[in-house]
Amino acid sequence: MSTTISPLAPTQVPDMPAIAGIRLATAEAGIRYKNRTDVLLALFDPGTTAAGVFTRSKCPSAPVEWCRAILKSGKARALVVNSGNANAFTGKSGRAATRLTAEIAAKAAGCKPSEVFLASTGVIGEPLDATKFAPVMQGLTERARAGDFLAAARAIMTTDTFPKAATATARIGKARVTLCGIAKGAGMIAPDMATMLSFIFTDAAISAPALQTMLKEGVADTFNAVTIDGDTSTSDTLMMFATGQAADCPRIARAADPRLKAFKKALGQVLANLSEQVARDGEGARKLVEITVEGAVSKASARRIAMSIANSPLVKTAIAGEDANWGRVVMAVGKAGEPADRDKLAIWFGGIRVAHKGERDPAYDEAKVSDVMKKPEIFLKVALGLGKGRDRVLTCDLTKDYVAINGDYRS
Amino acid sequence: MSTTISPLAPTQVPDMPAIAGIRLATAEAGIRYKNRTDVLLALFDPGTTAAGVFTRSKCPSAPVEWCRAILKSGKARALVVNSGNANAFTGKSGRAATRLTAEIAAKAAGCKPSEVFLASTGVIGEPLDATKFAPVMQGLTERARAGDFLAAARAIMTTDTFPKAATATARIGKARVTLCGIAKGAGMIAPDMATMLSFIFTDAAISAPALQTMLKEGVADTFNAVTIDGDTSTSDTLMMFATGQAADCPRIARAADPRLKAFKKALGQVLANLSEQVARDGEGARKLVEITVEGAVSKASARRIAMSIANSPLVKTAIAGEDANWGRVVMAVGKAGEPADRDKLAIWFGGIRVAHKGERDPAYDEAKVSDVMKKPEIFLKVALGLGKGRDRVLTCDLTKDYVAINGDYRS
Repeated sequence: MSTTISPLAPTQVPDMPAIAGIRLATAEAGIRYKNRTDVLLALFDPGTTAAGVFTRSKCPSAPVEWCRAILKSGKARALVVNSGNANAFTGKSGRAATRLTAEIAAKAAGCKPSEVFLASTGVIGEPLDATKFAPVMQGLTERARAGDFLAAARAIMTTDTFPKAATATARIGKARVTLCGIAKGAGMIAPDMATMLSFIFTDAAISAPALQTMLKEGVADTFNAVTIDGDTSTSDTLMMFATGQAADCPRIARAADPRLKAFKKALGQVLANLSEQVARDGEGARKLVEITVEGAVSKASARRIAMSIANSPLVKTAIAGEDANWGRVVMAVGKAGEPADRDKLAIWFGGIRVAHKGERDPAYDEAKVSDVMKKPEIFLKVALGLGKGRDRVLTCDLTKDYVAINGDYRS
Repeated sequence: MSTTISPLAPTQVPDMPAIAGIRLATAEAGIRYKNRTDVLLALFDPGTTAAGVFTRSKCPSAPVEWCRAILKSGKARALVVNSGNANAFTGKSGRAATRLTAEIAAKAAGCKPSEVFLASTGVIGEPLDATKFAPVMQGLTERARAGDFLAAARAIMTTDTFPKAATATARIGKARVTLCGIAKGAGMIAPDMATMLSFIFTDAAISAPALQTMLKEGVADTFNAVTIDGDTSTSDTLMMFATGQAADCPRIARAADPRLKAFKKALGQVLANLSEQVARDGEGARKLVEITVEGAVSKASARRIAMSIANSPLVKTAIAGEDANWGRVVMAVGKAGEPADRDKLAIWFGGIRVAHKGERDPAYDEAKVSDVMKKPEIFLKVALGLGKGRDRVLTCDLTKDYVAINGDYRS
């Protein structure tokens, strides 16, 4: 865990309200880190519904497989998250560790193991010693109480430099419901239907299938539009839990219910906020980079081109060097494999057009563009001039610190 | 241009023989660099055939478009290569610059502009001032003479730290023919049917269509199996020129002619040698990494998985840190999108099996593996256990120097 907070960290820590029906506790189980919390327990009152999206990796972690299997019921009573060990590529012992963890938590929480969701983040390939959860679990259930989402966010950090939390409220009918979300990110971030670890909690009364639909829709332009290094984790997990305990909240069964309009918007805000925080805390990041591609033949094509730019080491190192090297943006557009016409291409850095109709903008002023590149937030726009496809992704720069952090992560 | 030679550079400089029918000269045209050669002129005797493969970028450079257009004739009389400016994304002025360069060279060489091939490497998006070639071209044609391929290789370098050349001989019938090749690489290297710039010269008598077929076949497992940073250049160009002046060399029309067997082998050796040198001179590289994937469902699937590993920043930074972090190899296999079964996966570093059947090898010895990681050449093998598909790619590690080199390339 880094000791220096990212210069891109939000300046204000959000005021996170409690969610009726959810209690939280954290503990030091000594999984890998010393002198810091590394286990989070969330307890849900009976009636809580659950939804989740997970990594598309062909080599998913044991907890991801566990969650996928028990999610069919749509019901949740507990969530156990640990940092320091991903329990990924751990074979039979990994499966046994998930079962044991769920059993320990179920016993302490008074529920069934199949109602306990699990997530692990940290080193891949090290066996996870689940017996370490036993001594702390009873204390966790006893101490669990409403509220401290920032402590929860802190317990799931790995190379993150700040805890990530966001909140929003919405009306459903006459009820006022609250959403609270936490996330961890940092490296190995190129989510594909999910991100590293993120959990959204709400007191709304929404069926599991409706939650699932909204989560899947919500993630497409938030977490799935963020990349740190193009590396998709084995452990990506985004889950949402709804207790239904908001006063007077009508029970909503279908995602298409018009009463969910404000809730969907609030969910979108929380997801966008958390995923932007993940980009702001990319390993070694010194610049937040927003890449907009417009005029593509479709939104999907715009996404692939934006991701090709966002994942290009040459674009990312140029931004780290505060160099408006738009030639590398041309390269990344060209290698994306998507329809593009060099002679229609235009490129902007921070609102300044640097390239136009396939060549350097006649009004190009290196000094002005250099000023833009010195800022902590870089807005890069590419117009293809082919169609109406538009998309936006977030990333960060590639610095020597990224190399340093990842060259000695295990040592 | 870096002043420190890559620690992975070949210890011996090859002895490059002259090729009958080919004369070379280099000059300082001051395109971008000071006090170094930056233009190469190669003159070919009448009857020389030509073949080429080029970048698949959707935004190719002006010289790539020029070469594609004139290659149809299959005939070459001259080649002009400059470093320092890629003449890419330069619009109409870029097209005018290629035409002017070819005209200047054709006049000095006494041939048609459509017989002059062009290649440019360097910064993208800067207009290329082709008038700079005029004052040096007459001198180049006068000084051109057989032989100095190393000087030629030096004139086309950008961030390369050593000139790249390779040679081989072969029998065609009773004739002994010679191949000489040069290349430049360094960054923006993830060739897709071609590489940055490489030129192969031979005195064999082979038709242009047969040359083209052999070049296309030869590149698949050599240049196209190398990646430095996953970034495909706008300028990738690999060309081959055959003068037909080897004594007693029969004229070969078809690539399938059995008399080409030894020549194909020699060509493969030259291409493999040059492409390995490109990997050894990856920007900031301190480790040469060979990645073998076997047991995949097909060779194409093995290639995609090997490239996913080779392009993973997390794998590459771990290797830079001499960390056998095979969990990141699992991640890269998982994100490749190709068939893979976590519980059949095995991984070796330098011949030591570190993972087996979906978990850490029971005999895993961190100390032994650490010794392997300290070496300058890292052999990484993944067995998928699914089929007979096998492939091999070369890459290098991702170091702080890569970030430093690319953060201030233009400044």
